[in-house]
Amino acid sequence: MFSFELRAASGAARAGLLGTPHGPVETPAFMPVGTAGVVKALTPRDLREVGAQIVLANTYHLMLRPGDDLVARLGGLQRFSGWQGPMLTDSGGYQVFSLSALRRLGEEGVEFQSHLDGSRHLLTPERSMEVQKNLGADVIMAFDECAPWPAPREAVEQAMLRTTRWARRSQDAFARGDDGRQWLFGIVQGGVYDDLREQSARELCALGFSGYAVGGLSVGEPKEDMLRVLEGVVPLLPADRPRYLMGVGTPEDLLEGVARGIDLFDCVLPTRNGRNGQLFTRGGRLSIRNARYRDDARPPEEGCACYTCRTVSRAYLRHLHLANEITGAALMTLHNVHHYLDTLRRMRQSILLGRFAEFRLDTLRALAAGVRDIDNEA
Amino acid sequence: MFSFELRAASGAARAGLLGTPHGPVETPAFMPVGTAGVVKALTPRDLREVGAQIVLANTYHLMLRPGDDLVARLGGLQRFSGWQGPMLTDSGGYQVFSLSALRRLGEEGVEFQSHLDGSRHLLTPERSMEVQKNLGADVIMAFDECAPWPAPREAVEQAMLRTTRWARRSQDAFARGDDGRQWLFGIVQGGVYDDLREQSARELCALGFSGYAVGGLSVGEPKEDMLRVLEGVVPLLPADRPRYLMGVGTPEDLLEGVARGIDLFDCVLPTRNGRNGQLFTRGGRLSIRNARYRDDARPPEEGCACYTCRTVSRAYLRHLHLANEITGAALMTLHNVHHYLDTLRRMRQSILLGRFAEFRLDTLRALAAGVRDIDNEA
Repeated sequence: MFSFELRAASGAARAGLLGTPHGPVETPAFMPVGTAGVVKALTPRDLREVGAQIVLANTYHLMLRPGDDLVARLGGLQRFSGWQGPMLTDSGGYQVFSLSALRRLGEEGVEFQSHLDGSRHLLTPERSMEVQKNLGADVIMAFDECAPWPAPREAVEQAMLRTTRWARRSQDAFARGDDGRQWLFGIVQGGVYDDLREQSARELCALGFSGYAVGGLSVGEPKEDMLRVLEGVVPLLPADRPRYLMGVGTPEDLLEGVARGIDLFDCVLPTRNGRNGQLFTRGGRLSIRNARYRDDARPPEEGCACYTCRTVSRAYLRHLHLANEITGAALMTLHNVHHYLDTLRRMRQSILLGRFAEFRLDTLRALAAGVRDIDNEA
Repeated sequence: MFSFELRAASGAARAGLLGTPHGPVETPAFMPVGTAGVVKALTPRDLREVGAQIVLANTYHLMLRPGDDLVARLGGLQRFSGWQGPMLTDSGGYQVFSLSALRRLGEEGVEFQSHLDGSRHLLTPERSMEVQKNLGADVIMAFDECAPWPAPREAVEQAMLRTTRWARRSQDAFARGDDGRQWLFGIVQGGVYDDLREQSARELCALGFSGYAVGGLSVGEPKEDMLRVLEGVVPLLPADRPRYLMGVGTPEDLLEGVARGIDLFDCVLPTRNGRNGQLFTRGGRLSIRNARYRDDARPPEEGCACYTCRTVSRAYLRHLHLANEITGAALMTLHNVHHYLDTLRRMRQSILLGRFAEFRLDTLRALAAGVRDIDNEA
């Protein structure tokens, strides 16, 4: 039911195929974020059209609303949301620390108050596995503790060690209910400390997961730290297992992640920025509010094949954005997600052709040339 | 370039075909409201898919933002919005009275302050024609004064008489710039006073327009008044010209309007209620917030062929609505507009078959039976 095959490599970059009960995922892949069981402003057919193959949903949000028991009764996330393809849920750990009113963090788990109604909840490795089984995504994540950035080494180390212990408990709980319909991934922590990252990776690999995520990056640390950590961690992960860089990032970050052997990404940037009027293009980002687009009859991105670019102009999108029209958010989100997925498709193609290094240089060059032209904004 | 043919009648109800430079419109027809040049929450392809044939836009909103000159420079509303089909713009009169801070109403026109930024504007019959020519809709409306409800007879009479004078000025201004690419409709006013309505209809018909609208209804008056006015006015209008009931209404209102010989309708109900979580069905309205839909796996309306009903459940829509998800507004709007257009299509079919009276009874009976079952809400 599950499989992961490598089809080609170009340097450290890899092209693979992840098989899941809900269909195949060509890697490297970007997962649009469907926090509450919906990719904001898009419908399942929009996602199909732009070529999404896997969608992420957030355990924390869904356990609070509408509740994982309800989702289970309605046949799981895929059936509930109408998105019938592959899905991944995170463990809830990151959101518990970043969104909720934290009540108590202990070895057992995390007690927190909902950001929605103040109700109290306990999230443990065992409960995270239960919730994620109820939600029914194809790939689920071990419950982890993500230390904030910056944090003293001691705190990062304790969070990393706890993440390993929680990974073991996640694995045990997962094994008890395993029906072969889900894959469990472990999460490497350790902040920006290379030796802690190495220790985390070795301990998780010793436990043995179906895939491995690198968590706790893109949380504020300098870009060089993120890239250095990736360069240290990825070679320690088994080559035949998928590798997922959580919560990252810009198109450039995806390029750098793929260059270092990452297979899966997720990030709210294309959707959130789409709603806020910022469009991703090959030449850089374009802020639709900018007065220079007032009567610009060109599509958001010339040469782009997405519905938005085939149908409307920058001037029209600017008008919709200034008028707070929902349709504007939908059209710009559609373009951005298309842009991300298209970038990944072209990346994958370049790997299959053994030309990833050239693709990377060309892409970075286009961005460097474009940012001078687009917007002229600070 | 323009034509209007009657294909069948069933009682006073008529099935026709309106030809416009942007394509044909089968009547009776409902025009989804695209106030700011966009039907809120929908894209042009959504509109095509649910079978929209003509869309309305508001002169008042568009002259203020983004400005009719800008729309003209970008090729007119159809090209600007990506909706390439037939369109109609209203005259701006109704919104000037209902939305703006009115500064001065005189024989020349209306001076008002924008509800957006307080800027001052003058709208006259001549300026309304200029704006509507810039916007470039297929059908445009004479500038009218819509008296509020309730209002003393004297005030309604003065507004009606002024509407006739403004209709003449609209016609003169229109004729000066007429290039055969737009049709001008006149608007009958006169409130709920039968003799004023009759006078208004006779005066407008004497001027001679390509079509006739009945304005100033569904503004708060009892339903019986609206129907009585229609019964008095419609027979006075030339049978070979399209008849448009402005700003009306519920599915029942459309049925009653068609029964009295109306060909065109517009209303914000399906779009506004869709965003607010109220769904129209053959059995009545359904409020998705209702707790009874919490784990209701059924589609919004069983047997409905729209994308929303084919894809998601009431439980999922309720979840999206409670979570304030844009996609929920889009999916519910899509269903509602589909419901309206489908109702009109079925109405038209019944007229072509000479069975409109039965259709009307069946529809009203289904609504009467359904409202007891749906929601159980006050």
